[in-house]
Amino acid sequence: MANTKASIITIGDELLIGQTIDTNSAWIAQQLNPLGIDIVRRVAVGDNKADIVAALDAELSRSEIVIITGGLGPTADDITKPLLAQYFGGKMVVDERVQLHVRSIFERRNLPLLEVNLRQAEVPESCTVLFNKSGTAPGMLFEKEGKMIISLPGVPHEMMGIVEDEVIPRLRQRFTSDAMVHRSVITAGLGESFLAEKIKDIESALPEHIRLAYLPGFWMVKLRLTGRGKDEMQLIREVDMRQEEIANRLEEYVVALEDLPMEEIVGRKLTSLGQTVALAESCTGGYLGHRLTQVIGSSKYFQGGIICYQYEVKEQLLGVEHALLEQEGAVNEAVALQMALGAQRSMKSDIGFGITGLLSPGGEEGVPVGTVWMAITNGDTHKTKAFHFPYDRVRNKEVAVNMALLMIWKFVNHQ
Amino acid sequence: MANTKASIITIGDELLIGQTIDTNSAWIAQQLNPLGIDIVRRVAVGDNKADIVAALDAELSRSEIVIITGGLGPTADDITKPLLAQYFGGKMVVDERVQLHVRSIFERRNLPLLEVNLRQAEVPESCTVLFNKSGTAPGMLFEKEGKMIISLPGVPHEMMGIVEDEVIPRLRQRFTSDAMVHRSVITAGLGESFLAEKIKDIESALPEHIRLAYLPGFWMVKLRLTGRGKDEMQLIREVDMRQEEIANRLEEYVVALEDLPMEEIVGRKLTSLGQTVALAESCTGGYLGHRLTQVIGSSKYFQGGIICYQYEVKEQLLGVEHALLEQEGAVNEAVALQMALGAQRSMKSDIGFGITGLLSPGGEEGVPVGTVWMAITNGDTHKTKAFHFPYDRVRNKEVAVNMALLMIWKFVNHQ
Repeated sequence: MANTKASIITIGDELLIGQTIDTNSAWIAQQLNPLGIDIVRRVAVGDNKADIVAALDAELSRSEIVIITGGLGPTADDITKPLLAQYFGGKMVVDERVQLHVRSIFERRNLPLLEVNLRQAEVPESCTVLFNKSGTAPGMLFEKEGKMIISLPGVPHEMMGIVEDEVIPRLRQRFTSDAMVHRSVITAGLGESFLAEKIKDIESALPEHIRLAYLPGFWMVKLRLTGRGKDEMQLIREVDMRQEEIANRLEEYVVALEDLPMEEIVGRKLTSLGQTVALAESCTGGYLGHRLTQVIGSSKYFQGGIICYQYEVKEQLLGVEHALLEQEGAVNEAVALQMALGAQRSMKSDIGFGITGLLSPGGEEGVPVGTVWMAITNGDTHKTKAFHFPYDRVRNKEVAVNMALLMIWKFVNHQ
Repeated sequence: MANTKASIITIGDELLIGQTIDTNSAWIAQQLNPLGIDIVRRVAVGDNKADIVAALDAELSRSEIVIITGGLGPTADDITKPLLAQYFGGKMVVDERVQLHVRSIFERRNLPLLEVNLRQAEVPESCTVLFNKSGTAPGMLFEKEGKMIISLPGVPHEMMGIVEDEVIPRLRQRFTSDAMVHRSVITAGLGESFLAEKIKDIESALPEHIRLAYLPGFWMVKLRLTGRGKDEMQLIREVDMRQEEIANRLEEYVVALEDLPMEEIVGRKLTSLGQTVALAESCTGGYLGHRLTQVIGSSKYFQGGIICYQYEVKEQLLGVEHALLEQEGAVNEAVALQMALGAQRSMKSDIGFGITGLLSPGGEEGVPVGTVWMAITNGDTHKTKAFHFPYDRVRNKEVAVNMALLMIWKFVNHQ
């Protein structure tokens, strides 16, 4: 049996004029995928009746499930609900449970209840209400000619709560389908086309029901295998085997066999070795610390960091030599190393890491924009490395931190 | 004259299964908007010929411009280019300039040139090549029945370069249209529906050609006015007037009249006052420092920070009392204040800011998950504040830092 097809329609001018980035769709896709439901199309339209109706018509003709996000807020620019009432028929009715919930939210927050807020409890009588425990706008489920149409608020945490509590259980019950298995091989240090050349024979020997995709990032390429089939256990064995085959071939470039963020890969390594790390961040301004502490349990291996945006902070908190900064500036190998040593010493960690650079024009004279020096030490040995990133400030910072995580990972693996 | 309609088609399974978030579309929309070009639909499809062709057919029937991103890489899962050759006619030919460019990229990086890389220089003869200075996959421009179809690589910085250098000048030349003016009022501290109630009369008095949208975020709501018209100067005056009217009415809740990130608003304030800030971050792990240093020129007002993820770091680098931590733990008002004072003292800044909390389960006993204490001081006076955030670790961190930026902004405004 083929997988169930689903479409996502996102509503909102703010998505079209670029004021907001749609993170909801990716999250929804991740939740539906394991149920054997494929998102085949995703459409974004503005707050405009004709466009929304056209999108609904088109997606209902293609997909068995249509998920709509956004357009449900209390203010005047939200037009989805009346439109859905018209589209699926029936008048607007007050849902008692939602009304009680809206009242209780306002009472708890000690806020006056406005008429627009109470209107949140009105829903088309043709829908099943999908209860929104963390907000006032309920989700709605409509059925039409055997298809499911699900309308959700656009606020991410409200949308997520409804999907987890109300949508997934209903979809699981309704759609049985092919199993789907994803496996990844995360690589660093070799470009997409070189990787492809190295595993050309493995790729061309893949059976019809297993696909390989290359997802290039900055200095890293993720290889993703996707298998589909009826027998899940059999499929897992097959895809695992292909993953192993690819990983063995690409051995020296493989960073992980799980699709995890680099900070999680580093965290697992440090945890397994029982080691701690401390940072001295100049140009990255705390972003490396932020990434490391996105991981639950990072307090086991992360001591802390010093964001040394000024010379004085480098000198006084990290012990970088005054004369060195005076004579050579802050972007060089010696400063990076003294920063790493200072972090390790002052925060009493196993490993110290230092990063200093110039991410955008206007800093140190004589240093090319994009130059970044990194150093890592465990007290016995150290490594240093220079990079030259070609992007703007924000992207240079992003790449620098990815490279920093990779450098930490390599160092703890090979020390 | 009505605005020119454009559609964006993004290609890639990774976008549909949720492995990648589409940030390209928002960026493209932002670039096209000032040219009077409205993105009316955005469609995401997988790496699948039939779906791509269907999307092209549908969008060409609606829009005068269709922009396609993704599907141009060198590996086997990229199928867009042959499909476009078929769709728009003509055989594949080698573009000499692109071929030279591809060769030079590989020579510069000292990498062997593979056949797949050279194939990047092949384009359908029916297209105009849009030169990609930072990568090997060229953009392509097709014309069909007076419509423009633009195909761009999915790698963000390559796509951006082509749009800036090759696409915008061509669009500017081709499409003259209504002017479009956006103005924002950024508010904090009052919910969407209360804001709407306060400006009900202003909103209902808006003329047809000026629209108001509410864009709620965490604890902040952005109000966006969009005006369209022939006479740009006249339009600017009109929209400015409405913006002022709204801002005056909402006075106490207004944070800014420009659609800037909070860190930029804070940065401008600090710059205008000539003050510096230093941070002591526990639970946010460097994220506040990261946000502040996203701004070009932040070294003028940002001294640095201490990421004190462990008790010892709080004690030794910030001077938080050992006995206090022992008896009361790290998540309380006194620790936040000692952290703020320690940051101010050790980094010699005008303002010190401390933040300590528990963002996800598994930390301090007896502290409810989501509790965050913040403190700010200028040496003379200080403020402290507790928050209780209801989300998961990642979202709690995001909200905490937004609130921290708001707290710094308020403090420097009112001290």
